[in-house]
Amino acid sequence: MTKTTTTYFKDVPTIQYEGAASTNPYAFKYYNPDEVVGGKTMAEQLRFSVAYWHTLTQDGADPFGAGTAKRPWDHLSGMDQAKARVEAAFEFIDKVQAPFFCFHDIDIAPEGSTLAETNKNLDVIVAMIKDYMQTSNVKLLWNTANMFTHPRFVSGAGTSSNANVYAYAAAKVKKGLEVGKELGAENYVFWGGREGYESLLNTDLKLELDNLARFYHMAIAYSKEINFNPQFLIEPKPKEPSTHQYDFDVATATAFLHQYDLQDHFKFNIEANHATLAGHTFEHELRTARIQGMLGSVDANQGDPLLGWDTDEFPTDLYSATLAMYEILKNGGLGKGGLNFDAKVRRGSFDPEDLFHSHIAGMDSFAIGLKVANKMIEDNFFESIVGKRYETFQEGIGKKIVEGKTDFHELEKHALGLGEIDHASGQVEKIKAQLNNYLLRVNQL
Amino acid sequence: MTKTTTTYFKDVPTIQYEGAASTNPYAFKYYNPDEVVGGKTMAEQLRFSVAYWHTLTQDGADPFGAGTAKRPWDHLSGMDQAKARVEAAFEFIDKVQAPFFCFHDIDIAPEGSTLAETNKNLDVIVAMIKDYMQTSNVKLLWNTANMFTHPRFVSGAGTSSNANVYAYAAAKVKKGLEVGKELGAENYVFWGGREGYESLLNTDLKLELDNLARFYHMAIAYSKEINFNPQFLIEPKPKEPSTHQYDFDVATATAFLHQYDLQDHFKFNIEANHATLAGHTFEHELRTARIQGMLGSVDANQGDPLLGWDTDEFPTDLYSATLAMYEILKNGGLGKGGLNFDAKVRRGSFDPEDLFHSHIAGMDSFAIGLKVANKMIEDNFFESIVGKRYETFQEGIGKKIVEGKTDFHELEKHALGLGEIDHASGQVEKIKAQLNNYLLRVNQL
Amino acid sequence: MTKTTTTYFKDVPTIQYEGAASTNPYAFKYYNPDEVVGGKTMAEQLRFSVAYWHTLTQDGADPFGAGTAKRPWDHLSGMDQAKARVEAAFEFIDKVQAPFFCFHDIDIAPEGSTLAETNKNLDVIVAMIKDYMQTSNVKLLWNTANMFTHPRFVSGAGTSSNANVYAYAAAKVKKGLEVGKELGAENYVFWGGREGYESLLNTDLKLELDNLARFYHMAIAYSKEINFNPQFLIEPKPKEPSTHQYDFDVATATAFLHQYDLQDHFKFNIEANHATLAGHTFEHELRTARIQGMLGSVDANQGDPLLGWDTDEFPTDLYSATLAMYEILKNGGLGKGGLNFDAKVRRGSFDPEDLFHSHIAGMDSFAIGLKVANKMIEDNFFESIVGKRYETFQEGIGKKIVEGKTDFHELEKHALGLGEIDHASGQVEKIKAQLNNYLLRVNQL
Amino acid sequence: MTKTTTTYFKDVPTIQYEGAASTNPYAFKYYNPDEVVGGKTMAEQLRFSVAYWHTLTQDGADPFGAGTAKRPWDHLSGMDQAKARVEAAFEFIDKVQAPFFCFHDIDIAPEGSTLAETNKNLDVIVAMIKDYMQTSNVKLLWNTANMFTHPRFVSGAGTSSNANVYAYAAAKVKKGLEVGKELGAENYVFWGGREGYESLLNTDLKLELDNLARFYHMAIAYSKEINFNPQFLIEPKPKEPSTHQYDFDVATATAFLHQYDLQDHFKFNIEANHATLAGHTFEHELRTARIQGMLGSVDANQGDPLLGWDTDEFPTDLYSATLAMYEILKNGGLGKGGLNFDAKVRRGSFDPEDLFHSHIAGMDSFAIGLKVANKMIEDNFFESIVGKRYETFQEGIGKKIVEGKTDFHELEKHALGLGEIDHASGQVEKIKAQLNNYLLRVNQL
Ligand SMILES: [Co+2]
Ligand SMILES: [Co+2]
Ligand SMILES: [Co+2]
Ligand SMILES: [Co+2]
Ligand SMILES: [Co+2]
Ligand SMILES: [Co+2]
Ligand SMILES: [Co+2]
Ligand SMILES: [Co+2]
Repeated sequence: MTKTTTTYFKDVPTIQYEGAASTNPYAFKYYNPDEVVGGKTMAEQLRFSVAYWHTLTQDGADPFGAGTAKRPWDHLSGMDQAKARVEAAFEFIDKVQAPFFCFHDIDIAPEGSTLAETNKNLDVIVAMIKDYMQTSNVKLLWNTANMFTHPRFVSGAGTSSNANVYAYAAAKVKKGLEVGKELGAENYVFWGGREGYESLLNTDLKLELDNLARFYHMAIAYSKEINFNPQFLIEPKPKEPSTHQYDFDVATATAFLHQYDLQDHFKFNIEANHATLAGHTFEHELRTARIQGMLGSVDANQGDPLLGWDTDEFPTDLYSATLAMYEILKNGGLGKGGLNFDAKVRRGSFDPEDLFHSHIAGMDSFAIGLKVANKMIEDNFFESIVGKRYETFQEGIGKKIVEGKTDFHELEKHALGLGEIDHASGQVEKIKAQLNNYLLRVNQL
Repeated sequence: MTKTTTTYFKDVPTIQYEGAASTNPYAFKYYNPDEVVGGKTMAEQLRFSVAYWHTLTQDGADPFGAGTAKRPWDHLSGMDQAKARVEAAFEFIDKVQAPFFCFHDIDIAPEGSTLAETNKNLDVIVAMIKDYMQTSNVKLLWNTANMFTHPRFVSGAGTSSNANVYAYAAAKVKKGLEVGKELGAENYVFWGGREGYESLLNTDLKLELDNLARFYHMAIAYSKEINFNPQFLIEPKPKEPSTHQYDFDVATATAFLHQYDLQDHFKFNIEANHATLAGHTFEHELRTARIQGMLGSVDANQGDPLLGWDTDEFPTDLYSATLAMYEILKNGGLGKGGLNFDAKVRRGSFDPEDLFHSHIAGMDSFAIGLKVANKMIEDNFFESIVGKRYETFQEGIGKKIVEGKTDFHELEKHALGLGEIDHASGQVEKIKAQLNNYLLRVNQL
Repeated sequence: MTKTTTTYFKDVPTIQYEGAASTNPYAFKYYNPDEVVGGKTMAEQLRFSVAYWHTLTQDGADPFGAGTAKRPWDHLSGMDQAKARVEAAFEFIDKVQAPFFCFHDIDIAPEGSTLAETNKNLDVIVAMIKDYMQTSNVKLLWNTANMFTHPRFVSGAGTSSNANVYAYAAAKVKKGLEVGKELGAENYVFWGGREGYESLLNTDLKLELDNLARFYHMAIAYSKEINFNPQFLIEPKPKEPSTHQYDFDVATATAFLHQYDLQDHFKFNIEANHATLAGHTFEHELRTARIQGMLGSVDANQGDPLLGWDTDEFPTDLYSATLAMYEILKNGGLGKGGLNFDAKVRRGSFDPEDLFHSHIAGMDSFAIGLKVANKMIEDNFFESIVGKRYETFQEGIGKKIVEGKTDFHELEKHALGLGEIDHASGQVEKIKAQLNNYLLRVNQL
Repeated sequence: MTKTTTTYFKDVPTIQYEGAASTNPYAFKYYNPDEVVGGKTMAEQLRFSVAYWHTLTQDGADPFGAGTAKRPWDHLSGMDQAKARVEAAFEFIDKVQAPFFCFHDIDIAPEGSTLAETNKNLDVIVAMIKDYMQTSNVKLLWNTANMFTHPRFVSGAGTSSNANVYAYAAAKVKKGLEVGKELGAENYVFWGGREGYESLLNTDLKLELDNLARFYHMAIAYSKEINFNPQFLIEPKPKEPSTHQYDFDVATATAFLHQYDLQDHFKFNIEANHATLAGHTFEHELRTARIQGMLGSVDANQGDPLLGWDTDEFPTDLYSATLAMYEILKNGGLGKGGLNFDAKVRRGSFDPEDLFHSHIAGMDSFAIGLKVANKMIEDNFFESIVGKRYETFQEGIGKKIVEGKTDFHELEKHALGLGEIDHASGQVEKIKAQLNNYLLRVNQL
């Protein structure tokens, strides 16, 4: 179906669904793209995306060690390597049956010695990708501009202390929007890794935030100008590499958007590991975005709760996947968004085959989560618990409260007439046991 | 000057300023109420407040152990104890020369078996306090309703899953506003210790937040109705006792206020230990509130960065006190707010005298902070660092950015014409050394 | 089978195994006491124990709120309440089919106004418990002395700064050993909640550690003297209530035991939540104890990785339960130890029925963990992964290394002759997916 | 005095002591090498050391961005760059007046394509360094082998899952000991960044620990063989880059040393940031090592308590520096050890001058700490607090406890005769205020 003829992963077949009993490591045990769950196919519900940077570009380096990854394109460099990666990307994405991919500009093409040259490199690769997309089913979930790796972004991009850097960042986002339009991206993401501070001692916090808001307004204006209408997404993270990142979490970014009248132009791309670094569960961030209509897309990964940095592990925790899929289903799906594996194989998982093992692990985990969450919704599981727990708000004084038809006088009068208030137990332990039972019955779904 | 005749702390004299060379443990070495710093007296700049709960009420209990505190009112109970505490409070506050105090309703008067009885107890003590205030210089910085200790608030107050509890909470805040008016409180605080969730699994997040917003709107309306115009303050905290508290930090509460059109009615009461539990420095939270005009008041304490709970220690860290006072001075002071010692003596510091030692420690620390911060402001210390670091925004393309007079076309054109961008070092290490030098010269100020 | 005639939990039947398909909330879905798994019955493998303090004594209080628990013995006090709790304890333990229980001295009997009176109270209740044990199958897994709640232990017990407190603690442990002997306890536990410091600034660290070692030596001597041979267990915890607890984790306590020649007298009681507070996984602590032959017993609970304090939740995480059971099975079981639910119902789970729901949740979780871990061991799952990964140590230079038959000369010579070293991928992602698959097949085991 | 003729830092003079009033950024305000404090010169007390890796080699890269540092040797590469760095190192070290330096093998010379070639490169640079040391006063505090950066060490060195890597590591340490001997190193350090695990799921914990112990025994044997007697130092760290590092903290490494009969051959090199990552204060780790006679050397830096990774900041916190110097003075100094600045300039502090600013900041901070700690010791400050607090152990039953002359019978008898036990308050708040006062009087010392 695709023009892919080269085989970078020649020992790995296209991954097929074989069911829970399969012991074939190169098969899905749960992800069955065409199986209908909750009224849509799994492929439609899950909208998986491969992250170009972790799968094609990263090499396993960490702050204390060099790259360990063995990749079939290691012997190449520059544009030759970039082209090989495109070929490998399409082979990989097709083989894991992901309908989407995502990239930063410098993931796909090397920076030149000038911005003009960088853009030229980008144009070459974008044309190549566009060509490949013609004969593939793969679509671009989102693209973005990397404004954190190059030394020029040492003190930020849209929040740089240097106006020239700000202009440079604007040029990169301008190009990013053009590329997104060219490739039909459904979203455009802003992750502000360096939009924050290293130290408050030398930082003009207000100026930086004001400038960032101006930056976003200009991006929106330019996007409108070129008739490109992606869903704009902010991906919050609390810290790392900055000491304090400005879009700390969903709530913080919401405040910012409201303060600068940007709230109607953005939704959120929520990453699990960023949520936990901010002191929240993944499902908390999803819920917070969902109830304000701003759950846009998801970076599906997981962190290590005992480590203080962004480990970006492939998601295998079934509790997390299930509760995430519950939020997504309650959201009516992700719309233009998807489940992007912003996840990297461990440094010790350096073989090319590990890229497949890890994507299979992640896709099966979310397929399980989808099936379990869907069953719980069909059973009205959480809804009946919540309905009963808050039932006093459905009549009498409770109804008046919810409808905004009371005041402190009436409430005080009501309170003075109360005896001991009767509470219903929250029963969290029982709920958790029931959740386990749902999970362990997935093979019967 | 006051009517205080009983002496609960008879071995402790009124604390006087004796200067840095003093070795008298019952003297201020730095806090000199009438000394003018930055154009106002220290008393005016610092507006210290004694927290009734920690100083008069708490007993040193922790989750694993009973109270250890030895207090002169331990032999009493009920209303007798409450009255003795009022007497002791005024003696203590006068002796430490704090111009303000703060309390929760149940700090000052015991709960009765009905709400009516509780309110009656409250009336008796409020009358007694009002009487004492006539002959004292002490003022009420703020009061609040404790809506977290009683079992009825197990699942919140304004966010309870039970409408009767919501009504009960409304009655308490109504009474709190009346008490605040009666005693001339300058602010009214909301700290929502149980306004959050124990588990997201049984929680209707949206309903709870909607209800909380309705609660605040009713409080504002009632306050207006009784012609009581305190500054309303939200005191953010991320967690504890709840697993997740709704007003996690300044940014989260800001988002909430904007979403429910409450932003013009509130400022923030920022507690240092709450800031660090949320993953921020104290000064970050102060700055965040300040630049949006919402820095209202401060709970002056400190946490232990290696412990994961709210230790509420008396503030002795001079870095923190200095950077806090810098924010406060840049804010033009705290207005109606103050520096409230929401701090408790360690469980091992159980003698009544420790209450004095700890307040002296805290007051001297903030006096030092005030003097050092004021000197840095006089020297334009941070301002010149920041001015130089962001100087590219003062002309050319930078000026256009700040004035909102450019767009992505012009910025790209500018960027394409740039060579390597010249950065100025952030010099954080040098700045920190200079900060040390400022601090160590405080005895010469 | 027991003399229990009173019914404190009259609406709850004895919990029976009904299988995974059961929807009866008062039934085990996985724990089937007589089912043989890994050559022993589940009852023998799991050796569940009810923790007296959390189930009979704690009331749901937290640092910000009063108790919420509704218990059938709330109307009683003093010795009457203590006796009612014994009756309720045996009814509860029988109904949840736990073969063991554990207690601190003051859990079972109230403190008197003197040590002599306290001991007399204890004698009365111990006699009553002994009587109940005659007609029940329940045994005492371990007992211990509470040396952290009373104010006298404000600065520790065996590490107190006060010699009188040290003596008092010795008297309590002496009595505890006598009680343990009387009731046939299989272990005796030391958890040193206050054996640590509040501040290093006023602490003589060396004296405290020396004194603690002397304390243990005296306890061992006294135990020998009375012919009572329990397994002595140290339960490590890093902090809370102390700022720094001396038996921080397994490794720290191991160092202490070696430094004071106590290593042959102790094993460890490992609590999951204490492990995570110390920065370790539960399985890490279990493994660390196991490989040195010191895995004695387990406090089966779980913490909240986003909260910085000891939440002592009932264990429902199936990953944790499975990996814990793997370590326990590899240890050849727990010997005299057991799985003690050092876990409390959430403050919002205040009904007596929640005690049952939570124990069922915990027992089913560990039954699942047992079945999955046993299957993995039967399949040689981890063993084959590890065997292959370390295979270079099975011959040639690797064998010499392991046998201690080489030196730096030979190793250097070997290294100089090496080309690029060939590594095998660690494949963690694949292993995690396989672990999920094992777990989801539990209903077929 | 040295042969240094090239000037890599030509705009920076030799840093001289000018006193607290100096505003010269290139002067010490507190560090006065020849000033006598506590019976020795500051130079002798502090034994500062420059870390080759952070000062000469690191480039400001972080996990999300490329290097930013501007260094005068950036235009060179390979051995030319290595030689230029040696020249620059001696210029720098002389100019900051540090008496010592430290390095990893690959800091000073690039790896070749074979081990033999790597060793040859090393020999060339070692000879050059030796030559420079002839005409300089600078000595080698310690050297070590980098066994974490190269991909071959992906799963450890002395704990690798691969015997060939183990041999390679042995060869590197063998060479390291030879280099240490050649250059007269006073210590030899082991920091096991990859001696730990990425995941317990594929790890043979016992084999790895056994192998590590064998590795150390062979290193000791070889050192003896070549008549090189450095103090061997283990530098604990809990995690990063490994998920769990085996020498987690001082206590963990102590347990390991005892278990493998290595305790007499090692002391500790304690890094402040590693202490806090492990959940301890810097002073806790220093004290723990000191009281067991194992405080060997110090990596003087500081972390950010709100960030979960090793930030390795230059030490400017005067509380930390003072309490560290207190431990060091009580230890009778550091013996062969020193204060090594294992600290890097922030990524935003990219100018060569920042290397000077940061070293001046760190050296002045520890000079202040030395002066304050020495004054407190002269005043018997902490000693009198502790003496009074533990005075009950100086006679009667307390004396018997300390002398090991009592037992549980006597202690129980003593306890039964006690009334309410009288405690002395711990007075932590007062102590902290006094500590502030000591600190602020440093300019008068
Ligand atoms: Co992401
Ligand atoms: Co991430
Ligand atoms: Co507060
Ligand atoms: Co607090
Ligand atoms: Co426990
Ligand atoms: Co616990
Ligand atoms: Co170090
Ligand atoms: Co470090």
